[in-house]
Amino acid sequence: MSSSALPPLSVRASAITGSAIRDLLTLTARPDILSLAGGLPSPDVMPHSTIREVTHRILSGSTAALQYAETTGVRRLRDVIAARESALVRDEVPPTSVVVTHGSQQALSLLASVLVDPGDVVVVDRPVYPGALQAFQAVGARIESVPVDADGTDTDALARLLESGVRPRAVHTVSNFHNPRGGVLSVGRRRALVDLAERYGFWVVDDDPYGDVWFDAPPPGPIASDRVIRLGSASKILAPSLRVGWLTAPRPVCDAVERIKQSADLCGSSLTQLVAADLLADEPWLRQHLDDVRAVYSARAEVLVGALRGELGPAIEVDAARGGMFLWVRFTDGTDTSALLPAALDRGVAYVPGRAFDPAGGDELGTALRACFATSSEDELREAVRRLAAAHEAR
Amino acid sequence: MSSSALPPLSVRASAITGSAIRDLLTLTARPDILSLAGGLPSPDVMPHSTIREVTHRILSGSTAALQYAETTGVRRLRDVIAARESALVRDEVPPTSVVVTHGSQQALSLLASVLVDPGDVVVVDRPVYPGALQAFQAVGARIESVPVDADGTDTDALARLLESGVRPRAVHTVSNFHNPRGGVLSVGRRRALVDLAERYGFWVVDDDPYGDVWFDAPPPGPIASDRVIRLGSASKILAPSLRVGWLTAPRPVCDAVERIKQSADLCGSSLTQLVAADLLADEPWLRQHLDDVRAVYSARAEVLVGALRGELGPAIEVDAARGGMFLWVRFTDGTDTSALLPAALDRGVAYVPGRAFDPAGGDELGTALRACFATSSEDELREAVRRLAAAHEAR
Repeated sequence: MSSSALPPLSVRASAITGSAIRDLLTLTARPDILSLAGGLPSPDVMPHSTIREVTHRILSGSTAALQYAETTGVRRLRDVIAARESALVRDEVPPTSVVVTHGSQQALSLLASVLVDPGDVVVVDRPVYPGALQAFQAVGARIESVPVDADGTDTDALARLLESGVRPRAVHTVSNFHNPRGGVLSVGRRRALVDLAERYGFWVVDDDPYGDVWFDAPPPGPIASDRVIRLGSASKILAPSLRVGWLTAPRPVCDAVERIKQSADLCGSSLTQLVAADLLADEPWLRQHLDDVRAVYSARAEVLVGALRGELGPAIEVDAARGGMFLWVRFTDGTDTSALLPAALDRGVAYVPGRAFDPAGGDELGTALRACFATSSEDELREAVRRLAAAHEAR
Repeated sequence: MSSSALPPLSVRASAITGSAIRDLLTLTARPDILSLAGGLPSPDVMPHSTIREVTHRILSGSTAALQYAETTGVRRLRDVIAARESALVRDEVPPTSVVVTHGSQQALSLLASVLVDPGDVVVVDRPVYPGALQAFQAVGARIESVPVDADGTDTDALARLLESGVRPRAVHTVSNFHNPRGGVLSVGRRRALVDLAERYGFWVVDDDPYGDVWFDAPPPGPIASDRVIRLGSASKILAPSLRVGWLTAPRPVCDAVERIKQSADLCGSSLTQLVAADLLADEPWLRQHLDDVRAVYSARAEVLVGALRGELGPAIEVDAARGGMFLWVRFTDGTDTSALLPAALDRGVAYVPGRAFDPAGGDELGTALRACFATSSEDELREAVRRLAAAHEAR
């Protein structure tokens, strides 16, 4: 088929760029490369046989698991999510305040449509989770950003931005075990963020796929507020292929998300939603499973932090991981991580350079990198760091 | 949570209305109502035990079925779809021209973003499939429409519209067993549609979820053309909960759809995609299964047509069904089907009034209704028509 004289595509289709990270992942999928670049949960901690058994049981029951689902998600799953969220926020979250989405990326995408008109300001973290940035840019948001550190979004910087006259429609953050920064929003900053949201009238999008993946202690609970829209996901604790994410929000937001989801994809899979509901509702099983996930990831995080400090010593700063899947490594010797990447790939190790997470597109994050400790074994992590250190040594 | 002082939602969120049909389905979900209104495939023809066995086998294999999938879909499924499409269009469709979507509604929604800028004209059928109308309206398309009859889209009317100066970016139709009109695009009109697309430079969106559900003979094959984007679905022939739809299109379209899908939901479910791939690739099984589906639906269609003609005789016109799931019933005695609906519901039967399918919002379709023969048993269909005739008699 010749495509030289095809009808045009939309301006938006021509403008949108793919995810730099996904492009990098394609490039680095060579078998000889040890990748710290991805963000994949480890198959080692996915409950393979349990999902097989539960799926078989559900498919041995009624044909409801084969039919179209309600647009907002099957009721049994919304009930379980509502109960878990109610316990977290210490306030009643009714099932009617829950919408199940096709992974939490769809929650971001639908919310962007529901909350943001073209030209509206959305404030994101710097470094930012690129999937959130893409979703808000896709609806024409004007992006502002504030720094995020080990204690989460810098709410003092946000307050100064608001005092300077910026009036965002929404502020997005990853509250627990930030991707890519790895921090946890402190109790004080959680309170400050909600206070600012109430004072200035914006939505807080509290993106929380990693909250259950804590190592030594659970993160502080979210602040109950009708300004806060919470996003969750089964991808990091059960399996990505269930494609089960969710949001909890005041009813007007849920109603608008439902209408837009009708047009986006009608509904999710009743089959995978019923599987997720069974697993999330089985509290004794889930407790044990999450303990297993935490043990594996926490050991890997410790190995990666130890290896980085051992091999790269005074050239870097990195915080001990408190949960999640990522470390944010900052070179203190001026190493440009974008410039280092080709040499690192030559030596067989991949990571994501800090600039990929910069919503402002500057050099501020140019000496940082994101490293994922979740996917690789402890031995692979040690070898990956040896290769990284060799590339750094030879730069 | 008080919602009186919530931050605003987007203009788009406030403007979008839900699907009138889904609202009607909620109203008519009472157990005493026999519904001809829905569009659900019958659980009686879903391959329940086969899906259970294949799913179990896939989940007994590698953990790949639990991990994130490629954004464009798992390769095995794209290969099967490419082979099936190649056979249909009698031309080579490479797997790189296939994108797997979250049901074919997501294909419509992503395509609308990729093809249409706000203010661009999109031509749809009158009556129209409302899910397509919603998807194009959601991106700000200006909607024009042409009549559709038993031979599909009236390409003479389309030619006149084009001659009058209208320059659409895309023309959408359901080529086989139209929803809701029930016709099949004739060979001559297929050729005329592609000729017009080439002459005037627009995309044809050939939405084909029902092509395999033919009764006496397969529909004519699609015309191979790089102006034609084809949409397919596993929902009507396997099960909706797989959420497997797809599009085939020239590479620039597929590339743009992939980028927009990254931001929309990252990827589909590797689990349900692998299940669909296994079922669609098993040709002897699929042939037998489709024979079973066709036999059940064709018998039901015949019963419904017979009952309508028997009970409502000269007051209606209805074509014998050649496939798909729907009949388009036209009252010839001036009966207003919107006005008749409350009386019909009182007597325990539901249908969708013709106006719900009118993209122009006028009265032209006010004496028609859509009746689904797929979901109900033959006895239920006969009883539903008795109730409808009683409501009509008493009007």
